[in-house]
Amino acid sequence: MTPLTYEARAGVAAPSSYARRNAGRFVGELMDFVRFPSVSAQAAHASDVRACAVWLAGQLRRIGMEHVSVIRTPRHPIVCADWLHAAGRPTVLIYGHYDVQPPDPLAEWQTPPFEPAVRGGDLYGRGASDDKGQMFCHVKALESFMRTAGALPVNVRCIFEGEEEVGSPSLQAFLERRKDALRADLAVMSDMRMVAPDRPAITYALRGALSLELEVCGPGQDLHSGNFGGAVHNPLQVLCEIVVGLHDADGRVAIPGFYDDVREVSGRERAYMAHHGPTDAEILRDAGSPAGWGEEGYSLYERVGVRPALTINGITGGYQGEGSKAVIPARAVAKINIRLAHAQDPSTVERLFRRHVGRVTPPTVRTTVNATLAAKPALVARDHPAMRAAAWAYRKGFGAAPVFLRSGGTIPVVNTFQELLGLPIILMGFALPDDRMHAPNEKFHLPNFFNGIQTSLHFLSAVAGAAAAVNPAGDGMLSSAGSRGAADDHR
Amino acid sequence: MTPLTYEARAGVAAPSSYARRNAGRFVGELMDFVRFPSVSAQAAHASDVRACAVWLAGQLRRIGMEHVSVIRTPRHPIVCADWLHAAGRPTVLIYGHYDVQPPDPLAEWQTPPFEPAVRGGDLYGRGASDDKGQMFCHVKALESFMRTAGALPVNVRCIFEGEEEVGSPSLQAFLERRKDALRADLAVMSDMRMVAPDRPAITYALRGALSLELEVCGPGQDLHSGNFGGAVHNPLQVLCEIVVGLHDADGRVAIPGFYDDVREVSGRERAYMAHHGPTDAEILRDAGSPAGWGEEGYSLYERVGVRPALTINGITGGYQGEGSKAVIPARAVAKINIRLAHAQDPSTVERLFRRHVGRVTPPTVRTTVNATLAAKPALVARDHPAMRAAAWAYRKGFGAAPVFLRSGGTIPVVNTFQELLGLPIILMGFALPDDRMHAPNEKFHLPNFFNGIQTSLHFLSAVAGAAAAVNPAGDGMLSSAGSRGAADDHR
Repeated sequence: MTPLTYEARAGVAAPSSYARRNAGRFVGELMDFVRFPSVSAQAAHASDVRACAVWLAGQLRRIGMEHVSVIRTPRHPIVCADWLHAAGRPTVLIYGHYDVQPPDPLAEWQTPPFEPAVRGGDLYGRGASDDKGQMFCHVKALESFMRTAGALPVNVRCIFEGEEEVGSPSLQAFLERRKDALRADLAVMSDMRMVAPDRPAITYALRGALSLELEVCGPGQDLHSGNFGGAVHNPLQVLCEIVVGLHDADGRVAIPGFYDDVREVSGRERAYMAHHGPTDAEILRDAGSPAGWGEEGYSLYERVGVRPALTINGITGGYQGEGSKAVIPARAVAKINIRLAHAQDPSTVERLFRRHVGRVTPPTVRTTVNATLAAKPALVARDHPAMRAAAWAYRKGFGAAPVFLRSGGTIPVVNTFQELLGLPIILMGFALPDDRMHAPNEKFHLPNFFNGIQTSLHFLSAVAGAAAAVNPAGDGMLSSAGSRGAADDHR
Repeated sequence: MTPLTYEARAGVAAPSSYARRNAGRFVGELMDFVRFPSVSAQAAHASDVRACAVWLAGQLRRIGMEHVSVIRTPRHPIVCADWLHAAGRPTVLIYGHYDVQPPDPLAEWQTPPFEPAVRGGDLYGRGASDDKGQMFCHVKALESFMRTAGALPVNVRCIFEGEEEVGSPSLQAFLERRKDALRADLAVMSDMRMVAPDRPAITYALRGALSLELEVCGPGQDLHSGNFGGAVHNPLQVLCEIVVGLHDADGRVAIPGFYDDVREVSGRERAYMAHHGPTDAEILRDAGSPAGWGEEGYSLYERVGVRPALTINGITGGYQGEGSKAVIPARAVAKINIRLAHAQDPSTVERLFRRHVGRVTPPTVRTTVNATLAAKPALVARDHPAMRAAAWAYRKGFGAAPVFLRSGGTIPVVNTFQELLGLPIILMGFALPDDRMHAPNEKFHLPNFFNGIQTSLHFLSAVAGAAAAVNPAGDGMLSSAGSRGAADDHR
């Protein structure tokens, strides 16, 4: 592959300086963004999600993006915009999501989740890092170009969705419908983590996800545990029995066939992971956990990075209130999340799960399984020219070369972009491991916000420069067809 | 023992007729009673509990009871009253409770729990049978005597508490303080079940109870199940593991030492239970359960009547809302209820439970155990003269001889009355097995309300007659010192 020069045609000095001068205002605007309780999972917040979309569209319009629109879907809107006047240059699709996780449990927040507060260099609030803060790095990079150069160094399309936290149910249909109008050379998104403030990272692998609800129904109604305790099988008890039976004593998932499609990674990749990835001690420190757990024979980073996992996200059954209530509940529900490793398929795993639950359900109860989210694992080529542009941009933005990371998380759209639009997607994370994404007291480290904006500036500039260097005609050179195979090196 | 004649000095014809004529009004007043959301477990309902006490005191005052008072306790008030003008006659202490279980889950009620409704001969509402309706049988019997004869056939003391559903934390101290002022010959309460509308029952044994909260704490905060799933031990998972480990595969409690103090009942009592008690099919029909469960070698009635049981009343952990949330919760809690069989002691069992949990807690988490209720099992002598009076009263009130029943439930005050005041306590149940006590759509069968009033009338009259027959001087003859041992016949 031709070495890249990274000589950007559009200079970054002026936009970079603009971003630094306006950092304070940018933080204020991010706080406005976080203030919207855009909780996509809860119907009661539908209008808040919409209001957030409208606000975001206003931001894009104000900085000079074109064709800004808030597009209705069956659930929450997609915000789109573009700027396509960099003739002969590549087109970068910037993806982000403005919806957030539910803030529960509310009582554990030091300051309310939707009243953003700055403490000790961090901005606290639900969505501060996942994903409002991280996507805002790109928005502010675009603003910095537009307000200084009056133009962007590349063509840009923005797609900011409001359903990422519920599995992006509308995005696929939207992308299919607009496939032709969404032509681009690469996609970029920032919804993942670095290793530490001075150790940036580019994520090249994501686990898939399968969310399931398991319901156990027993007696016709709640029963008095005095009058019936010891004589009927308690659905809550059965639920616990089934849940415990999902793992064996060694911490492996005990569903027959579960590991059949899981591929082992190469020794070379394991060595890279051991050298560049987080250590067991770092992962435990971030978790605030006294000890590790899980599959023998794998480091904690490997357990979340290359191995599948089954997690109980919630159990509801019986009396939830204050004090005690002597009841055998008629039903109990567990919310279960399975993270899929390469090359597991969510529909296959769902079938295995259903078959297993059917087999272990005792005759005393009925069970039902309901799938609420399914996403395949994803892998991004690490030697794509745009990956190199991203690595260079991190060196400029954070002053350090990024490592290549596997994430245990899931971003369903990564697969969608790769499979549907045929785009390489660059995963430039700006969050930190202790940012408490999905948990109370979520935060975004403000130095990462500022460095993230600089990184985005340099990335867009480098993409323009790389394309020019590789191919002066600049048409689509970044869509390197052979690049996906190269990632297999490390598997 | 001297045969009893049951010739009541005070006639029951006029009060009995009064009760029948006023049945409609009585139902209306019971509905007023049920309308109070007197949920003792929930602090938010403290003023409702108090308002209910004040209303009940008004009822007692209106029918001519004396020294009516609403007595403050650290939590919910005790309503007291007496009428002590039956010189030379026994004194009957009538106990009941006006507090109710929480109505959760609210969505499953056909009509709101505190908007009582009559459907098909049943009165629906939280507390309709447990215990407002059943205690009201006695209140209305007292009214029927007072409004016809202008007097009661025996001396009566009423103690109606507002903390039964939370383990009667204030009653013991109250009884100790007033021990001398509460002298009586026997106590009666109605907070239990018959077998069927035409099969009345007198309960002679109750299980004890121990309510525990088990908390499992793991990571310092809720974690993203993508980023950490597979590498940390999920507290919810550990909770399920500990909960499942509380039973062995045969449905027996697996806590070491748990059965050490449990006494087997005699073959004679087992034969009586098999002949007179509910069948497995009846218990399963009442439970709406497809199959039985529990200890091998015991009928379902024996499993709830003579065997201990451990039941999970509730589990709370992780995401409880709509949709899914990819979280590993920092903590999870189970509410556990242990029903104790004769002669288990709650403090011994609590110690065994704590030791067991300590032993099985993995190093990945911390566990804490909190006891919220403790009550000993209770046994009442079946050959006490007052038991015979009660049996006669049922024949008059329901037209059928009662069977003697063991209840799987717990009434902590039964032990307190027996041990502290040295009183035999007669457990005259008027509820039905399908009354859904503690569950949604709790009801009270109105024919049982009417027959219960008649039974109470005849019981008070028979106690007066029995005392007169046994001992014309009528002072305390019903406190038969040797009677408790006799119940052991059937153990």
